[in-house]
Amino acid sequence: MTATPHEFAPVLRERQEASKEAARGLNQASAALRDEALGAIQDALIAQSARIISANTVDIDRGKAEGMDEGLQDRLRLTPERVQGLADAVAVVRSLPDPLGTVLRSMTLPNGLDVTQIRVPFGVVGAIYEARPNVTVDISALALKSGNAVLLRGGSAALESNKVLVSLMREAIASVGLPEDAIASVDDFGREGANALMRGRGYVDVLIPRGSASLIETVVTESSVPVIETGSGVVHIFVDASADADQAVDIIHNAKVQRPSVCNSVETVLIHREALPMVPAIAQRLLSSGVTLHADEAIRELVPEATAATEDDWATEYLSLEVSLKVVESLDEALEHIRRYSTHHTEAILTADMANAERFLNDVDSAAVMVNASTRFTDGGEFGFGAEVGISTQKLHARGPMGLTELTSTKWIVRGTGQSRE
Amino acid sequence: MTATPHEFAPVLRERQEASKEAARGLNQASAALRDEALGAIQDALIAQSARIISANTVDIDRGKAEGMDEGLQDRLRLTPERVQGLADAVAVVRSLPDPLGTVLRSMTLPNGLDVTQIRVPFGVVGAIYEARPNVTVDISALALKSGNAVLLRGGSAALESNKVLVSLMREAIASVGLPEDAIASVDDFGREGANALMRGRGYVDVLIPRGSASLIETVVTESSVPVIETGSGVVHIFVDASADADQAVDIIHNAKVQRPSVCNSVETVLIHREALPMVPAIAQRLLSSGVTLHADEAIRELVPEATAATEDDWATEYLSLEVSLKVVESLDEALEHIRRYSTHHTEAILTADMANAERFLNDVDSAAVMVNASTRFTDGGEFGFGAEVGISTQKLHARGPMGLTELTSTKWIVRGTGQSRE
Repeated sequence: MTATPHEFAPVLRERQEASKEAARGLNQASAALRDEALGAIQDALIAQSARIISANTVDIDRGKAEGMDEGLQDRLRLTPERVQGLADAVAVVRSLPDPLGTVLRSMTLPNGLDVTQIRVPFGVVGAIYEARPNVTVDISALALKSGNAVLLRGGSAALESNKVLVSLMREAIASVGLPEDAIASVDDFGREGANALMRGRGYVDVLIPRGSASLIETVVTESSVPVIETGSGVVHIFVDASADADQAVDIIHNAKVQRPSVCNSVETVLIHREALPMVPAIAQRLLSSGVTLHADEAIRELVPEATAATEDDWATEYLSLEVSLKVVESLDEALEHIRRYSTHHTEAILTADMANAERFLNDVDSAAVMVNASTRFTDGGEFGFGAEVGISTQKLHARGPMGLTELTSTKWIVRGTGQSRE
Repeated sequence: MTATPHEFAPVLRERQEASKEAARGLNQASAALRDEALGAIQDALIAQSARIISANTVDIDRGKAEGMDEGLQDRLRLTPERVQGLADAVAVVRSLPDPLGTVLRSMTLPNGLDVTQIRVPFGVVGAIYEARPNVTVDISALALKSGNAVLLRGGSAALESNKVLVSLMREAIASVGLPEDAIASVDDFGREGANALMRGRGYVDVLIPRGSASLIETVVTESSVPVIETGSGVVHIFVDASADADQAVDIIHNAKVQRPSVCNSVETVLIHREALPMVPAIAQRLLSSGVTLHADEAIRELVPEATAATEDDWATEYLSLEVSLKVVESLDEALEHIRRYSTHHTEAILTADMANAERFLNDVDSAAVMVNASTRFTDGGEFGFGAEVGISTQKLHARGPMGLTELTSTKWIVRGTGQSRE
């Protein structure tokens, strides 16, 4: 059991140290100054929209030349409207209340010691993410609002876009007197930049991976700094025997079709055998929106358009207009299936039986568990958090949508008058 | 960036699965039943005291034969009084309020969705620890109270003691109808047992290492499951120019001598140059209790008994009757030294200058920061938590003393009436 600390190139160590130092500067800045910096970022995004789009065009053209698929191109692409959207998101974050300094617990001990637990920034928040350049701005804004420095590692597909975005945000925060290193990127260090985050113990206080399941798996496995796992969602809806048929049709359609590429969209629908009569209506509504159905034998008898589901289907996060459907004999079988295949993101039961609802809520071990609602509601915006860093699927520190509060830690303040311990 | 999942022997995988299944059983058990199980453990410890001590004697004899030092023998040793102490600790844990089910946030969204965040168990809590067999009982009791299963990997020095303790706790919880696998050990799997915890993604929800700095470093570096780092404490006290001299003598003596082997005892005392006149009294009080002093030149001129401190001294957690002393020119220099050498556990300032106190409280990035009090107060018992799992020195999830609350996660419960997302 030996652990060898990672050796970083001096220039990369300097980058880590600069972030840590900038985090100290932010910790001493007032909420008003942090908000002023957010305002400066908002203005810079609008003023430099053409420069951002021009850099983005370089990324898009390189992507096209390398055969990037249309969906990915779309996620990468910035337009004047989308840049405006980035600025608007910064404005929303700016308008939220300051999360820092809140007293969480407070007590006076019998010996007179005054003990208070307060909310403080983490320090340096690391993020490793993929193609979407909006993440660069979203995470920077949330971190700045919560008093944290960020050290970013974006996807190589968005290299030029991210370079311009980071550069203009650094100028913006420097213009109000905050340390520019509060927002920094390690993209110029290639693979070693990712190591600077994953192995940056003492420099990176928390690391948030956002992207594909394989990216998240790699970050979780290789990191020695604390990680908050986000996102991957093999999401289930269980249609109980007593479900309202019309609601089931609407909710399943909404959960799959409203935005199929995101983590809270449904991937598997489990149907109680007694609810089989609802299947044709559910299937037709999905098929009418172009959804591909993968189903077991009992359902295929009712829905000839469905292809045969394989074992792989139950474990697949399609993130597209595809869904798997399976008949179960009981609530217990549904719970057993969910236990086996869920990624602990969101699961819902559709039922009129409140005893079954309560069993489902208690037994299913996921970040969000729902009764008679679309799984698409697991979302920071919907929960009223204003913006979100991601959706945590782990149980440590944050579970479910992560807003500003989830980017903070705590600290115990003890005020005495000379007390020693007996 | 590829990650290969760890392949476990089938028998070890079964152990992990049994823990996960037992956690489900616990999650469905009432608080009254969990308390009844704690009572059964308490009774079994007393009833089987002789069997425990006999197994412990085997460990002690093996340790002696292998040349184990006296201090370690003492930490390993169980006596009738110490076994009674274990049972008493279980009784204290049993008497605490149930931490589960509490509503943390609750809101009704504009669309009528009822959203509630409640406190739930983690599931399976892993612990890797060293010689002290009391940890086996303490962590099991805290986990049981908070509805978690435990999977334990104790030190090989305490193998026979832990085997008996785990066995009697399993019998005790089974006797009240809880799954015996809620308390299990992987000690019989050697090194692969530690891997079962560190690489047990999907089976271990949180892993707590307790022990030496090198043990903790290894666990943090090698784990792919979420870890809560505990314990290591290079703790500082800064004596400001305006400190009360008598208080400084008392507090520093208390912080070093009252229990030198623990993480919240002071290791380095920084002294403002203007406070140098206090040094002889501080030093004499420490020397009178047999403390070895490692000091810089300015202090050695006043205290000839002190040896010359080396660079290593500033980074050393002595955990014994040794302390390092250093003169600083200013609060800034003290803060700079702490930033460089602190392990972010506990630091204190002794001062009559409240502006300096506030700067210190704000600037020092540690789990607990104190003014005019002994660092020994960073302790779950002192903070009124009843018992503690350890003291977290990381910022994610838990920071400072960890009690029952820190062994829980949360879950979002969403109740609808057919809502879909717009």
